[in-house]
Amino acid sequence: MTNIITLPIGDDFHTHLRQFKKVDELCMDARNLAPLGLQGGFQRFLAMPNLKPPITSTAQALEYQKVLEESAPGGTFLMSMYLCNDLSVEELETAHKAGVKWVKLYPSGVTTNSDGGVDDIEEYYPHFERMQELGMFLNIHAELPKSWAPESLNVFSMTAEAFFIPVLQDIISDFPDLKIVIEHVSSRVMVDFIATRDRNVGGTITAHHLLTILDDSLIDRSLTCKPTPKSPDDRQALLDVIDSGNKKFWLGSDSAPHPTSKKLSYACPCGVFSSLNLLPILVHIFEQNNMLLGENGELLNTLPNFISKYGREFYKLPELEGTVTLVRKPQKIPESIFGATPFLHGKTIDWSIK
Amino acid sequence: MTNIITLPIGDDFHTHLRQFKKVDELCMDARNLAPLGLQGGFQRFLAMPNLKPPITSTAQALEYQKVLEESAPGGTFLMSMYLCNDLSVEELETAHKAGVKWVKLYPSGVTTNSDGGVDDIEEYYPHFERMQELGMFLNIHAELPKSWAPESLNVFSMTAEAFFIPVLQDIISDFPDLKIVIEHVSSRVMVDFIATRDRNVGGTITAHHLLTILDDSLIDRSLTCKPTPKSPDDRQALLDVIDSGNKKFWLGSDSAPHPTSKKLSYACPCGVFSSLNLLPILVHIFEQNNMLLGENGELLNTLPNFISKYGREFYKLPELEGTVTLVRKPQKIPESIFGATPFLHGKTIDWSIK
Repeated sequence: MTNIITLPIGDDFHTHLRQFKKVDELCMDARNLAPLGLQGGFQRFLAMPNLKPPITSTAQALEYQKVLEESAPGGTFLMSMYLCNDLSVEELETAHKAGVKWVKLYPSGVTTNSDGGVDDIEEYYPHFERMQELGMFLNIHAELPKSWAPESLNVFSMTAEAFFIPVLQDIISDFPDLKIVIEHVSSRVMVDFIATRDRNVGGTITAHHLLTILDDSLIDRSLTCKPTPKSPDDRQALLDVIDSGNKKFWLGSDSAPHPTSKKLSYACPCGVFSSLNLLPILVHIFEQNNMLLGENGELLNTLPNFISKYGREFYKLPELEGTVTLVRKPQKIPESIFGATPFLHGKTIDWSIK
Repeated sequence: MTNIITLPIGDDFHTHLRQFKKVDELCMDARNLAPLGLQGGFQRFLAMPNLKPPITSTAQALEYQKVLEESAPGGTFLMSMYLCNDLSVEELETAHKAGVKWVKLYPSGVTTNSDGGVDDIEEYYPHFERMQELGMFLNIHAELPKSWAPESLNVFSMTAEAFFIPVLQDIISDFPDLKIVIEHVSSRVMVDFIATRDRNVGGTITAHHLLTILDDSLIDRSLTCKPTPKSPDDRQALLDVIDSGNKKFWLGSDSAPHPTSKKLSYACPCGVFSSLNLLPILVHIFEQNNMLLGENGELLNTLPNFISKYGREFYKLPELEGTVTLVRKPQKIPESIFGATPFLHGKTIDWSIK
């Protein structure tokens, strides 16, 4: 049994770092959240733009980036723009020049702060055209809203991801050179769809979708999220595609804190707060699924590739310098941090950052 | 538009009336719960036996029945026995003689207070044999526990009811004259299974499975229950089979209160507390789905048959005397009663009992 492992410092390509204006709730303040990812073993982060108001200008993005960098010295924060009517095609060029190369597509109403999102995909074809030319990246929350579907279609939380595939297929065939990433993949059918597309399509996978299924979400409100974790078979598909070394899949934690008081109210907001101890949790999950170590106790490439290589290569980003060492030392995840409930709160995991 | 309707006083053939020993929580005390069903427009109730300890003797059942009758004068309470190792075949005869003709089968661990339930169906074949001879009724919580299934079977909350069908099929073919009722039917596949069996098999349907789907349960903890509500299509199958006038389906509310403080904790107990205003809620649901009134505003037989005729006839019980009159008068369901959160808390429904 190996009791110490060293991993490349990694990228979390999907995280919610919330606002930096004055907010009542500590867990919704970017200045508290930005350093957590570094403490959790990561160095570079793709910050989601669904703030209130959403990030629709380069100036907003750079202002946000500055606060994040000041709050978490040593961290690199990649910025993303929120696709909506307020984001002009012209602004994309300004953004691209400033290094803001990511655009997030939220179908209207599918998750937290997505109300002003996209209602009609074709309205954004000029954006996709320009993004394709510039080499920008389109990140998609791939769930079909009920409002997009005919009444007779059996759209609900278990099928919304699968029913989004025809929408994806249209975008892919109309913009074959656009780089597209499906966020927080949760179903076998989406794994298979991505795996069989060409190299311009990838997918991120969260820690919580590797560990939980629907039944867990139904009981424990700290696990309620979008897209909802699905069947044991869907979870296995996520584990298997990572285990196979498929380059089209990499980590995006989708860490999304909400105040515990709101999570435990009747109208539970969606989001799992996983940035605290993210790397030890991933090591724990990979080991439990025999994806961490080889037959002779040597570290397999699977986890390093998942947290560092595959996403970076897709996004054409430089390799990060530095490593993180973890030791087999059980730790109990706290019940609360900044008034939010972290993923696996109160549970003991086998590994700690040295 | 009709603003007043008169319905036969009805039967709720599945309700949890909890304990009568001293309990800290008002909503877990049968003396508070028993009268609620009467106020909600019903007169006869099949009380579930999954108390702590469960009801496994005739003496226990009769003691429970006495408290319920004293707490709710005018109510009729039918008693059920909990199928487990403590319930002997001999006791079934004693129970039957005392008018206790119902036996509830909980697969071990599938829901609240089912830990001491059934692990091996064939162990209870002598019970089924005797019940068949005596003309007793077997009520089944039809969800396959993971522990009964091979690892490779994709059993989870969305499939557990469907995967129970082979178990049912075995019981039905081995005991063709045993009267069997599948409780709280939640899926199209189970509707179809029951609809195509012979007259010895029936099913109950709750109010909340007629109104909600999985997505509602994922957000609002007051709706978390077993079996979990499923897809829009599954919900439609329940509505359609009632609308068709199929005699094999009738009401069982599965009203199951839990203290609000527990429902809003992380480990949310399963159960929807629907006995408060049950009949006005059903009238509201039936009207919304065009199942209440005919083209000329006349009351259809659908709801009367669902709440009174079909279940009573299956169980060979006398018709109840009396009627309930409801008026179209909006009422807001309270947020709390006895420290529990009722179904549709805070929502306004269109009908009230006169």
